[in-house]
Amino acid sequence: MRVKSERYRTIWEKSETCVCVIDQRHLPHKFIVSELTSVEEFAFAIGEMQVRGAPLIGATAAYGMYIAALEAARNDSFDESIAKSARKLLATRPTAVNLQWAIDKQTQILSGDGDIETRIKDALETAREIVEEDVQNSKKIGEYGADIIEEIFRNKKDVVNILTHCNAGWLATIDYGTATAPMYIARDRGIRIHIWVDETRPRNQGAKLTAWELYQEGIDNTLIVDNAGGHIMQNGLVDIVIVGSDRTTYTGDVANKIGTYLKALAAKDNGIPFYVAVPSSSIDFKIADGVKEIPIEQRNPNEIKYVDGWLDGDIKEALIPNKESRAANYAFDVTPSRLVTSLITERGVCEASERGVRSLFPERF
Amino acid sequence: MRVKSERYRTIWEKSETCVCVIDQRHLPHKFIVSELTSVEEFAFAIGEMQVRGAPLIGATAAYGMYIAALEAARNDSFDESIAKSARKLLATRPTAVNLQWAIDKQTQILSGDGDIETRIKDALETAREIVEEDVQNSKKIGEYGADIIEEIFRNKKDVVNILTHCNAGWLATIDYGTATAPMYIARDRGIRIHIWVDETRPRNQGAKLTAWELYQEGIDNTLIVDNAGGHIMQNGLVDIVIVGSDRTTYTGDVANKIGTYLKALAAKDNGIPFYVAVPSSSIDFKIADGVKEIPIEQRNPNEIKYVDGWLDGDIKEALIPNKESRAANYAFDVTPSRLVTSLITERGVCEASERGVRSLFPERF
Repeated sequence: MRVKSERYRTIWEKSETCVCVIDQRHLPHKFIVSELTSVEEFAFAIGEMQVRGAPLIGATAAYGMYIAALEAARNDSFDESIAKSARKLLATRPTAVNLQWAIDKQTQILSGDGDIETRIKDALETAREIVEEDVQNSKKIGEYGADIIEEIFRNKKDVVNILTHCNAGWLATIDYGTATAPMYIARDRGIRIHIWVDETRPRNQGAKLTAWELYQEGIDNTLIVDNAGGHIMQNGLVDIVIVGSDRTTYTGDVANKIGTYLKALAAKDNGIPFYVAVPSSSIDFKIADGVKEIPIEQRNPNEIKYVDGWLDGDIKEALIPNKESRAANYAFDVTPSRLVTSLITERGVCEASERGVRSLFPERF
Repeated sequence: MRVKSERYRTIWEKSETCVCVIDQRHLPHKFIVSELTSVEEFAFAIGEMQVRGAPLIGATAAYGMYIAALEAARNDSFDESIAKSARKLLATRPTAVNLQWAIDKQTQILSGDGDIETRIKDALETAREIVEEDVQNSKKIGEYGADIIEEIFRNKKDVVNILTHCNAGWLATIDYGTATAPMYIARDRGIRIHIWVDETRPRNQGAKLTAWELYQEGIDNTLIVDNAGGHIMQNGLVDIVIVGSDRTTYTGDVANKIGTYLKALAAKDNGIPFYVAVPSSSIDFKIADGVKEIPIEQRNPNEIKYVDGWLDGDIKEALIPNKESRAANYAFDVTPSRLVTSLITERGVCEASERGVRSLFPERF
């Protein structure tokens, strides 16, 4: 997608020994590209959240393992060095599913039978494949989602107002995003759209990332506080809600950034369709009851008490409540499938139910 | 209520020519008392939001008119001077109902037949009456609300978890508050309670004022982002919701700080009682349909884009999204009566319906 009219992905090869990522910690105030040339730097990039979003974390780890192989080739014990790097990368964000998956995949390739040079070449190819597959999946979600937006546009014959929560944008993937992909593709098809962007407290990913990436792409958008969604839905200002998902059960319950459930309730109360963009990599085929079975991470309360923003030419942190205030920071919530109109996957759109998911991914059952 | 163990009201007489208010703009970081001795200073206090909350604005204006009378007595034309001060005070917050009401009441008293000295004395008495009546109304709401909390406590035999939104606390009234009054009275009765405080974006009145006043009173409370209410209700962590109201229709529709409607939806979805503390002064006996008829104020988008907090020993403002981002700042929303369990008024608890309101306030129909 575009940044100051130039096309970017969130991760790219600068050379065979250097991978670049956008250091997202500084967005939207500074656009800084980080060059990763060692396992140490990859671990830092993932652990310190220069990169975030499950697909991007996976791709970064895959490249990290390729760089690990280059380092290992210079050591006496190739396999031992690979294993050590794998452990180091895995420890950065222990709960991210895509991280484990990408590291396992690369470890398997790198501990294969061929000569080391071939294995390293294969690892590079695999990293590239992971990246390309993610882009293709995002594009497909975008096409299927754009069909839905297009139908609303045909009926309404006016700007389609889309509400989204958090950042399930291209910054969380490699390109296009998940929830944003239908917006970018709809725009490419000439459909007039306007996006309501929830600021998404406490980390403000909507305000900092989604509003910024839509602005860079020239897509009309308006930032609102998370409190406002109900009011604008009640007043006919929203035609469709599209959000992403961190984990979706095979029965269609959706774990996503805290606050998603409240928006789903408001959509239901006002007869507004509520869609979730879900690459199959985030569908959990083992869990049936989202509310009961998906563990909800509690994060540092200081993410609520302190807000960082741009002040006097730098990013600074200010305290909002009295210092002694206690805060609880639930990071995600679960939207029951009964509130979800449909899931948009890379294989098409389906009902948010076991029947729906099974119809698109029969081989996973 | 208490601040650092000392008892305060939000407004008090220091002498017959000086009225004190807490300058709430600096809370919770600085506790500054502002001494008001001229109409100019009263107009500044209301206009610049040293004081806020409809009951407190009304009481401040009433005292402001008394001080206006003292100033007028030193002028040639008493009546003309009073009228000029009334216009000045009224212009500070043109939409506040209590402001108009208090100024009209005092203007009538001051343009009466008696000698000027008596009229001025009457105006001072009226200001005192307005203050005392508000305290009594808050106390009564507190008693009726505490009965509800007490019943939950008797059944649960454990800490009662109460969620509230924004600041309908003593800082918005003279003492006790509206939504908080039941909490303070319940605590006084020895009922164990814990309050979930919504931070209440964009102005963070929950984080800055409610969490602070509960902390000062030693009431156990936890700050959460506005996004979290649905999740904690879904997980059995909330027993009752109590909020205030800026305007309630005689049919029971409730206009309150933006985001209230979303919490009401979550309460309904999880079978949690949702109460609104409403002094009759905020019931609009002329409006039947809240969603259609109550105008919703749109405020400056910079209240969303910039957040102020404590940094390097002072209150500073930081920018969250990219500077070019557009934001829309809807200040209130309307919760339809079907989502409201009951209204808590100074005359008792009633159904959120015309029948309910009529049963308590028959003379207003």
